[in-house]
Amino acid sequence: MGYVDELGTAAKAAEREMTKIGTMQKNAALRAVSEKLLNNKDIIIRENSRDIENARINGMSEAMIDRLTITESRIDGISEGVLQVVALKDPIGEVIGGGELPNGLRIIQKRVPLGVIGIIFESRPNVTVDAAALCLKSGNVCILRGGSDAIYSNKCLVRLMREAISEAGLPADAVQLVVDTSRIVANELMKADKYIDVLIPRGGGGLIHSVMQNSTIPVIQTGEGNCHVYVDRFADIDMAVEIVNNAKTQRPSVCNAIENVLVHKDVAEQFFTALAEKWDGKVKIIGDEETAKYVSVEHIATDEDYRKEFLDYVIAAKVVRSVDEAIDHINRFGTRHSECIVTINLDNADKFQRLVDAAAVYVNASTRFTDGFEFGLGAEIGISTQKLHARGPMGLQALTTYKYLINGNGQIRG
Amino acid sequence: MGYVDELGTAAKAAEREMTKIGTMQKNAALRAVSEKLLNNKDIIIRENSRDIENARINGMSEAMIDRLTITESRIDGISEGVLQVVALKDPIGEVIGGGELPNGLRIIQKRVPLGVIGIIFESRPNVTVDAAALCLKSGNVCILRGGSDAIYSNKCLVRLMREAISEAGLPADAVQLVVDTSRIVANELMKADKYIDVLIPRGGGGLIHSVMQNSTIPVIQTGEGNCHVYVDRFADIDMAVEIVNNAKTQRPSVCNAIENVLVHKDVAEQFFTALAEKWDGKVKIIGDEETAKYVSVEHIATDEDYRKEFLDYVIAAKVVRSVDEAIDHINRFGTRHSECIVTINLDNADKFQRLVDAAAVYVNASTRFTDGFEFGLGAEIGISTQKLHARGPMGLQALTTYKYLINGNGQIRG
Repeated sequence: MGYVDELGTAAKAAEREMTKIGTMQKNAALRAVSEKLLNNKDIIIRENSRDIENARINGMSEAMIDRLTITESRIDGISEGVLQVVALKDPIGEVIGGGELPNGLRIIQKRVPLGVIGIIFESRPNVTVDAAALCLKSGNVCILRGGSDAIYSNKCLVRLMREAISEAGLPADAVQLVVDTSRIVANELMKADKYIDVLIPRGGGGLIHSVMQNSTIPVIQTGEGNCHVYVDRFADIDMAVEIVNNAKTQRPSVCNAIENVLVHKDVAEQFFTALAEKWDGKVKIIGDEETAKYVSVEHIATDEDYRKEFLDYVIAAKVVRSVDEAIDHINRFGTRHSECIVTINLDNADKFQRLVDAAAVYVNASTRFTDGFEFGLGAEIGISTQKLHARGPMGLQALTTYKYLINGNGQIRG
Repeated sequence: MGYVDELGTAAKAAEREMTKIGTMQKNAALRAVSEKLLNNKDIIIRENSRDIENARINGMSEAMIDRLTITESRIDGISEGVLQVVALKDPIGEVIGGGELPNGLRIIQKRVPLGVIGIIFESRPNVTVDAAALCLKSGNVCILRGGSDAIYSNKCLVRLMREAISEAGLPADAVQLVVDTSRIVANELMKADKYIDVLIPRGGGGLIHSVMQNSTIPVIQTGEGNCHVYVDRFADIDMAVEIVNNAKTQRPSVCNAIENVLVHKDVAEQFFTALAEKWDGKVKIIGDEETAKYVSVEHIATDEDYRKEFLDYVIAAKVVRSVDEAIDHINRFGTRHSECIVTINLDNADKFQRLVDAAAVYVNASTRFTDGFEFGLGAEIGISTQKLHARGPMGLQALTTYKYLINGNGQIRG
């Protein structure tokens, strides 16, 4: 039996065990996880330091090392995050439909866990705990495949979580880590449809596309955000500058930050002048030739630039002739995540919201609000940029499916 | 531009047009389709006869030729089916969530079409019209790829539908047929994630698995049904015989018919004796050695037999020692479609419904009820055997997604 078969078989056994575990017990297990992490800060930090040491040897950038680093206060945050999941309503067992048919059959449509969830993510150890907590709360079993850069941290976190949930009476195998982080195993995992019900890649565009291309398991694409603000001819320019500034610079490394600004030609001069003043060189602008007339640009933008997630203090700009041109550009280059129009014109706002194909379409607000917490879902497992199953921020409900339970007394079909 | 690019580009243009079309206009278009089919019976039957002629030359079985054949009364049925879709409630535009955030942002979660739906199906021309009607009603654009055996019928049906919807003001390209039925084009289609939002294969297990393996587009698996009835130790044997008989023989060729019967050892003799009497050789039984003690079997069943969708008057039987063994067998060999226990014991019924992993889990009723009409969804696009997006019978709602519309007055994130 190969490694992935071992993981899969253990996951299926744990899945069956999990059907017997109620909300109280799941919450107790999560509280135990939260506490276990707090009580083992020294061990976690020690193991994490091995990853950091390797990262430095491998020449990882400081920004990436920062994402990888676990500190005491970050453990506090991770532990607190688990308690927030405890506080969320358990979606499992909810009756979401049903009724009695004329022939007397009683149908109950009941929310149940998806089963076994595979999560493939990059080197952010906080995701390891977040994802496991959300899977456990929704009655699912998870197989976590983190990046090799975080392997010591992940091994330690998963070992502690398994100890905690097992002490609380849950199957330890409800949380498993893929310790062999080779590409071969990753590819096997993507084809393990026999064991895994859903695969959720969390990370950059490259990771997501590779999973989409190679997986035979249903995938939920998350978190690729090539987002735009369109500054309409009828925009309040001060508001437009504030929104573009917030959406670009408040936290440039996240998926709901914008990468592009489209500006109607009639307000381009006024807008770019105000924006340049606001930014004072803080953000590099790549723009088309029209943009270059009003503001200094790094270079003339290509289609490649309009497709890029910079995740940095860089923005691609374009002057457009109409709201239709803006919509077409967004539908062509966007990743269907979050898009915004700034306008006081009702028709243009309506048209933009109707025709832009994205999970969240804003009028006069920053795209940074596309987030499970902001939307009131509580913690999120990711932000879906596909249209099947779940779109936009995915809370616990996105980790469930349903089942029809049908009770009769001998009904047969005529 | 290749053929699939042409189809895709036309579909995207039609998708945009469709956002402007309201319920009344969609219904008018569907009524026009219904009428157009009735008014062109002779042409449809003539084109269909070309397919039948080729089928005979190619030595197609009579059962398959029957599925392929279009008669006057079948056109009446197809046309009537379209009117039933007219009568269904339009899911598009429904507000399914939302509210106001503390910062004043107003969120509306609104149901919208999936966009472009690819449907790959085998040689049943009625599916061509059914699927198109459901896609249109839910505001979607469809690309239909039927089997080459039905190409003349499909070309004719799609031409008539396109004429009808175009006369009613809808874009003709909202319904497109893949006229090149080569494997190369089918493979290109499965990778056309740039244009197609969802792929729905309708047909046998081979087709579905091939699409799952090769597609880079999110897929909804439908209609593979390796279903079971488990006759519990506490079963009413008369009821069990009636349910097994109905689930197997009322229409053996459909996905919600059973392929297997599992029988508790304590009632095996009584049950098989009664079943043999009922069937009198009408259904071939393949069974394990235990089964062979009580009833004459064709041969001793292998794992291969337990995995097979016979879709015929053949059943695989097995004697089990407990409800747990039945559940394990079903979770191992079933396709997560429809499963049934016959019992008067509450604990066993509960356990079976909780632990069997399937879209529809029955107590004391025939699996033949898993069906969109029976479940009150109206017409169905298929029966999903996967857990993402939709499970079990899929009505119009399964052809939609949602979009968050967020309106503010300059909110930025702090």
